[in-house]
Amino acid sequence: MRDVAVIGVGMTRFAELWERSIRDIFVEAALKAIEDAGVDHIDSLYVGAMSPGLFVGQEHLGAVMADYLGVTPVPATRVESACASGGASFRQAYLEVASGASDIVLAGGVEKMTDGADVAEALATASDQEYEAFHGITFPGLYAMIARAHMTKYGTTREQLAAVAVKNHRNGAKNPNAQFRSEVTAEQVMNSTMVADPLRLLDCSPVSDGAAAVIVASIDVAKKLHKNPILVRASAQASDSIALHTRRDITTLGAVVEAARKAYAMAGIKPGDLHLAEVHDCFTIAEIVVSEDLGFFEKGKGGEAAEKGWTSLEGGKIPINTSGGLKAKGHPVGATGIAQIIELVEQLNGNAGPRQVKNARIGMAQNMGGSGASAVIHILERA
Amino acid sequence: MRDVAVIGVGMTRFAELWERSIRDIFVEAALKAIEDAGVDHIDSLYVGAMSPGLFVGQEHLGAVMADYLGVTPVPATRVESACASGGASFRQAYLEVASGASDIVLAGGVEKMTDGADVAEALATASDQEYEAFHGITFPGLYAMIARAHMTKYGTTREQLAAVAVKNHRNGAKNPNAQFRSEVTAEQVMNSTMVADPLRLLDCSPVSDGAAAVIVASIDVAKKLHKNPILVRASAQASDSIALHTRRDITTLGAVVEAARKAYAMAGIKPGDLHLAEVHDCFTIAEIVVSEDLGFFEKGKGGEAAEKGWTSLEGGKIPINTSGGLKAKGHPVGATGIAQIIELVEQLNGNAGPRQVKNARIGMAQNMGGSGASAVIHILERA
Repeated sequence: MRDVAVIGVGMTRFAELWERSIRDIFVEAALKAIEDAGVDHIDSLYVGAMSPGLFVGQEHLGAVMADYLGVTPVPATRVESACASGGASFRQAYLEVASGASDIVLAGGVEKMTDGADVAEALATASDQEYEAFHGITFPGLYAMIARAHMTKYGTTREQLAAVAVKNHRNGAKNPNAQFRSEVTAEQVMNSTMVADPLRLLDCSPVSDGAAAVIVASIDVAKKLHKNPILVRASAQASDSIALHTRRDITTLGAVVEAARKAYAMAGIKPGDLHLAEVHDCFTIAEIVVSEDLGFFEKGKGGEAAEKGWTSLEGGKIPINTSGGLKAKGHPVGATGIAQIIELVEQLNGNAGPRQVKNARIGMAQNMGGSGASAVIHILERA
Repeated sequence: MRDVAVIGVGMTRFAELWERSIRDIFVEAALKAIEDAGVDHIDSLYVGAMSPGLFVGQEHLGAVMADYLGVTPVPATRVESACASGGASFRQAYLEVASGASDIVLAGGVEKMTDGADVAEALATASDQEYEAFHGITFPGLYAMIARAHMTKYGTTREQLAAVAVKNHRNGAKNPNAQFRSEVTAEQVMNSTMVADPLRLLDCSPVSDGAAAVIVASIDVAKKLHKNPILVRASAQASDSIALHTRRDITTLGAVVEAARKAYAMAGIKPGDLHLAEVHDCFTIAEIVVSEDLGFFEKGKGGEAAEKGWTSLEGGKIPINTSGGLKAKGHPVGATGIAQIIELVEQLNGNAGPRQVKNARIGMAQNMGGSGASAVIHILERA
C-alpha cells in the first residue's frame, strides 16, 4: 500500500443553515478543500451522508455533488455508516489512493437536518429498526442507558458528565466554524431540560447542517505540490452488534476497542504517543466511555479524567475535542467524521489559533455510528 | 495494485418476498457466497443499497448485516449510488483487496421494496430532487423522454423496444432466480398498460425484493483455495449530470461511455472481445442506448441489434442479459449490480445451465444509477 496524505481541507460553519441547500453547502466545503490543496483536478469523490433520503428527499448524492461541483465524469460514490459516514468516506478515499487506483481523491461529508424532516425518527434508523426503533426508543434513550450502566458500574457522576460539556463548549467558543460559540457552566448543564435521565439537553449534541471535505493524495503528489502533507498513519474500522441488548457489557464499546487496537498496531504507537484526539461525543457519556476504550484512561476513569481536566486544552494529558466536539461544534451527521480530520490537520499544521495544542505532531480521530455498532479511527501525523 | 478475483457467489431468488426481512434475505445471500467460496472468514463487508431508510426505515445497513451475519467486528460499510449501488459495492471491495488492506472481502447488495413504502417516490430520490422529482416526474417519465429522443434521432421503433423485453423474458424463463420465469410476445409488450408514452408496463423492470453477494479475494488467496478464480480485469466508474435537462444529448449516456472507455483500456480489450454482457435494462430503451454506448453496435443501431437477434443467447453476436436482465430477473435496486457479477461468474465458470453461452471466457457487467448519472463497469475473465 502506498503512503497517503491529507493536503487540503475545507468546511462550512456548522449551524442551522435554513437558507441553504445540501448541494450548496457541500460544494462550498469541497471548493475550499480543492483550493486549499492547490490541485487542478480530482480523480474521484466520496460523499459521507447518513440519510439524505429521509432528511431532504435526495439519494444518489455522489452524482449530485459531482455534478454541482463541476467535476463530472469523475467517479462519485456515497458512503454510509450512520454517524460514522464521514469517517467511512475518508477511509474509502484512503483505500483508493493507497491502492494506486487514484492519486487525488476528495473525501467529503454532509448532512442537512433542519429542512423539516422528523429528525429523531430519521436518526433512529441508525439503531436496530426491528428491536429498538420500532419500540420507540431514540438515541438519547440508548445513550442514557449506557450512562446509567456506567454510573452504576464505575461510580461516574452527574458532575463528570457535565464537565465534558463545559470543556467542549469552552473549546467550541474558540472555533469560528462551531455551531455554539458560547461557554456553559456545570450548573447550566445540570439544570438544563431533562431529555432522557440522566442526560439533559446540554449533554446532547445538537441538530445541525454542515459540510466538510478534505483532499487525500499519494505522498508523491503531496510532495510535488510543496505542501506540508499530513500523513495518514492508520485507518481502521470495526463493527459491533446493532442493538444494545445483545451486547455483553454496555459500559464499553466493542467496535471502538477493536478499531483502536488495529489503528495503534498499524501506526506502531501507543495511546500515550498521541498529542490530541477528536472523539465522537454525540452525548457527554460517549466521550467518557470512548476516552477509556481508546486506552487514554483506565476503564471507569473517563469521568474522573474529564472532571480533573486531563482532557482539557489547557494543559491536559491529552486534549480531547479541541474543535468543540460534536457537542459544541455541531453534529451534521455525515460531515462529522470529516470535520474531525480537519481539526487534526489544522492542529498538526499549527493553524488552530487560540485552540492550538502546542507542538502537536500526532493525533487521532474517532468517529462512530449508532450506539457504537460502527467505529472508524484514523491516526494522522505531521510529516 | 494486486490482482483480484471473485471466488464465491450467492443470491436469493428475486421476487416479492413479503414474508422475509431485509436482513434475512441479505444473510441468505451472504452465507451462500461464503459457502461457495469455501472461506472460513471475511476481512470486511460492503452492502450496496439505494434507500433502506425510505423503504424499510433502516439505515446503518453495514453494521446491521455484519451483526446478523455473525461476522462482527469486521469493518462493514454501506455504499450507495442509487441503482448502481451494487456495482459500487463491488468496486469498493475490489479496491480494498487490490490495495492490500484486506485479502477476503464480501461485496453484497440488497433492497426490500415491497414493504409498503411509496416505491415511485423513493426511487425518484435518485433523480434531481430540486429540478426533476419536485416537479413530479418519476423514472418511467425520464426514460420515456430518452426513448422519444432516440426514436426521433435514430428511427428506433416501438417493435425494437419490445424485442428487448421479449429476449430478456426468454432468458429469464431459464433462470431459477428470476422474478419472471415466463416468456412474453412482442404483441403482449406492445399491448400492455401504458406507463409513460412510449414505455408500457412490459418495457419496465419490476419492483422487487432480493439480495446478492460475492466473495472477492486476492489472487494468492484464490489460488490457495484451489478455486477457479474469475479475474477482475477492469473496474471503472463515472458520473454525469444528475438531471436530464442539463445534458447536451439525452440519446447517449455520458457516464456509460466514459466508464466503458476506462474499462476497456484497463483490461486491454475491445468491445468485440467480450463473449457476453449484463447491462442495466431498467427500461427496454436503456438496454438499447447502453448497447450502443458500450461500443457493441454503431450509435443508433441498438434497436436494430435487438430486433435482429444480435444480442440473443441463441447465436447473437454478443448475448446481452442472459440472466433475464433487470426486466425479467427483477430489480431489487441495491442487489442488481452484484447479481450482474454473479451471472458473469456463472457463465464464465460454465455453470449457467440452459442459459450457458458456449466457451464464454470474458464478460462485462454495466450497472447504472438514476437516468445514467452514475455508471459502474466491470470486466471479468476466467483465469
